[in-house]
Amino acid sequence: MNTLLTNARIATMDESFSIIESGYVFISGKTFKQIGAGAPPQDVLKQADVTTDLKGKWIVPGLYNTHGHAAMTLMRGYEDDLPLDRWLKERIWPFEGKLTKESVAAGRDLAMVEMIKSGTIGFLEMYHLNMDDFASRIEQVGMRAVLTRSVIGLCHREEQDAKLNESADFAARWDGAANNRIHTMLAPHAPYTCPIDYIERIVDRARSLSLPVHMHLAETKKEVDDYHTSFGLHPLDHLVEYNLLDDTSWLFAHAVHLEDSHVSILAKSKASISHNPMSNLKLGSGIAPVMNFIQAGIPVSIGTDGVSANNTLDLWQELRTAVLLQKGMVQKADAISTQQALRMVMREGANALQTGQKGMIKEGEEADFIVVDHTAPHLQPETQLHSHLVYTAVGSDVSDVYVQGHCLMKNRELLTLDEEKIRYEVNNQYQATVQSL
Amino acid sequence: MNTLLTNARIATMDESFSIIESGYVFISGKTFKQIGAGAPPQDVLKQADVTTDLKGKWIVPGLYNTHGHAAMTLMRGYEDDLPLDRWLKERIWPFEGKLTKESVAAGRDLAMVEMIKSGTIGFLEMYHLNMDDFASRIEQVGMRAVLTRSVIGLCHREEQDAKLNESADFAARWDGAANNRIHTMLAPHAPYTCPIDYIERIVDRARSLSLPVHMHLAETKKEVDDYHTSFGLHPLDHLVEYNLLDDTSWLFAHAVHLEDSHVSILAKSKASISHNPMSNLKLGSGIAPVMNFIQAGIPVSIGTDGVSANNTLDLWQELRTAVLLQKGMVQKADAISTQQALRMVMREGANALQTGQKGMIKEGEEADFIVVDHTAPHLQPETQLHSHLVYTAVGSDVSDVYVQGHCLMKNRELLTLDEEKIRYEVNNQYQATVQSL
Repeated sequence: MNTLLTNARIATMDESFSIIESGYVFISGKTFKQIGAGAPPQDVLKQADVTTDLKGKWIVPGLYNTHGHAAMTLMRGYEDDLPLDRWLKERIWPFEGKLTKESVAAGRDLAMVEMIKSGTIGFLEMYHLNMDDFASRIEQVGMRAVLTRSVIGLCHREEQDAKLNESADFAARWDGAANNRIHTMLAPHAPYTCPIDYIERIVDRARSLSLPVHMHLAETKKEVDDYHTSFGLHPLDHLVEYNLLDDTSWLFAHAVHLEDSHVSILAKSKASISHNPMSNLKLGSGIAPVMNFIQAGIPVSIGTDGVSANNTLDLWQELRTAVLLQKGMVQKADAISTQQALRMVMREGANALQTGQKGMIKEGEEADFIVVDHTAPHLQPETQLHSHLVYTAVGSDVSDVYVQGHCLMKNRELLTLDEEKIRYEVNNQYQATVQSL
Repeated sequence: MNTLLTNARIATMDESFSIIESGYVFISGKTFKQIGAGAPPQDVLKQADVTTDLKGKWIVPGLYNTHGHAAMTLMRGYEDDLPLDRWLKERIWPFEGKLTKESVAAGRDLAMVEMIKSGTIGFLEMYHLNMDDFASRIEQVGMRAVLTRSVIGLCHREEQDAKLNESADFAARWDGAANNRIHTMLAPHAPYTCPIDYIERIVDRARSLSLPVHMHLAETKKEVDDYHTSFGLHPLDHLVEYNLLDDTSWLFAHAVHLEDSHVSILAKSKASISHNPMSNLKLGSGIAPVMNFIQAGIPVSIGTDGVSANNTLDLWQELRTAVLLQKGMVQKADAISTQQALRMVMREGANALQTGQKGMIKEGEEADFIVVDHTAPHLQPETQLHSHLVYTAVGSDVSDVYVQGHCLMKNRELLTLDEEKIRYEVNNQYQATVQSL
């Protein structure tokens, strides 16, 4: 299948952030075969099976969401106004206790609908239920994903090992699946829910399977203070004491409560950070020292966390919040450039999820991209493309989504998910869950 | 004209935040004549000239944007990555210097398109150019507005007086115009641009005209520090020393750099605050102590500021940023409730702009409201209406907008503005301005 898109404004997001003001993109199979300015040459026109005139719409790399819990999407807005401990104990955990195979699936379908409709092409899922079902579903839907069957180690050794084995077996089974769109990681839930010797065994297993490790780190002050009280040190220092950063590719979520010494430690490791600003603000967790990470050369990508604590999967808003927050915190309007910001949800996201993709529109790369309709009033005057993507675009501006050359959404119609049916199912499952409480 | 809307979910935002899960709204002339649950009674059906089945869509009070510079909308994204002083001197001021009657009008038209399309029904404009033209335009378009011809006093007494007279004449001419949709205030630009005796003369005039006063206050730390260096005190303390808070209704924009003593002063006055979080973050100005204002009983509404420093007029995002920011700053997930938050862009906005409206869906009140389409994935499951409005809704979810019973947008089509023509004009005017630099 050869697809030709003409008359597009192309934000390549390549090394020099070049923009093709009017050009074409020719996709053969799953690859960008030819990209150029102006009208396509005759030989390209002849080879195209389908040609679409984009009438000035923008072609932009797809977005990556590097931390989340899609399974929890059913809990959107279920409770917003309780302090964290009561929020978990009185609302979230009882609700989660009633989740079924069907309600988890409905929540995840809704998450994929929302992600595709807002331009996200790849995401990380950290959860413990029905991971094989989800992997199969993603294979059909056509998104990219990193799947982690996360484990909590507050149990005896046998149960810990059973969970780790289940997690590693799942990871081995699915890594590289779905035409290499699915990858896996191992995932201890957090230092405060996994004893250090359990994390050590998980990391050892990850090393032997050549898999990265994903974990929540230092999300709240209370959690870090309690860890100090129990073990006499910061959880990251504990990982260092056990040499767990060595020879391991870590992706840490949150990383809010870190000292300067921790930034230095992370800078020397291969770790990267998934920054989740809206969840961190909403749950009262605080504000991660993102400018310190960036200045130290630590890769920073963006995650939404689950919508039970966000409440939206729209990465444009998440990116905007991240950038505005850092400019405001350090009181510098030039703290982070527009282009550097945009890269966090594209190239840095692709890297954090170890997709092998570059997050660029480039010949020879796999044809992952989105089309942005440029006509909304908040995108006028049209000139400043990068600025508008960072500071004004929202999910509903995205008209088309492609992954590996396959179209997942065309003119806002989903091609691999039945949006109306999913909406119906989600509301049914939500009501059933609430009634079962 | 009698308009009947049936089958709606109605967020009344009344004193008890009651929601009518399925009901109708009957509008006679400019007033909500009858509102009820279930199907409308026969006599209402008979009186209706137009009946629309909303099929479960949400009826919600319209939003108020209490600080901005619509004239600057042409500068959206013109520069995002310079520190404040260079941003102004190298980019914003030279561009503003080239503005014409036509380019200012194009920017303002675009602002109104964006505001109506995102559910904003009323706004404040602080600017110095072509205010009569704008007032006439708003009269045609049908929005509510508070118009202030702002003045800068860094000039000799004659020029100061000429500006004040122009400003007061404009205010007297338009206050209460357009069927009471347009109101006016006097507006010294800021303490650092208006000598205290000039502010005193402006306030005296406002008192004699029974008009409120609008001003930028303590937006940046530098401005406050410089004021201390020049005058030995904080600008707000200077206003107090001159008794300028007494017998005056102030609406202060920004109010970022205030001490606890200033919060006490404001609490004892009739002042209210327009909080502009996205602009304050983006320009590196800092974060206003909004929780302190709220706890002290100072009314807080939300403004976007101009899009040259924001860059969007979508009040849903502005509100979200405000709420998330305060929860994150005080590290308390329950710092501000969902309903209290929502009221900031409705009732508090209506109060701040002294519209005489209540920001509620209520019998006897003027029929100002918006219709929100409930089908977007980020609004599922649908149950939590208030939560979704605060934490996930975006401008594009708004399908219809009514002010005083007149429909300004129906199914996302603007009825009083030509969106396509304005988009064309905005891009032309932008290019012409840039080429003239």
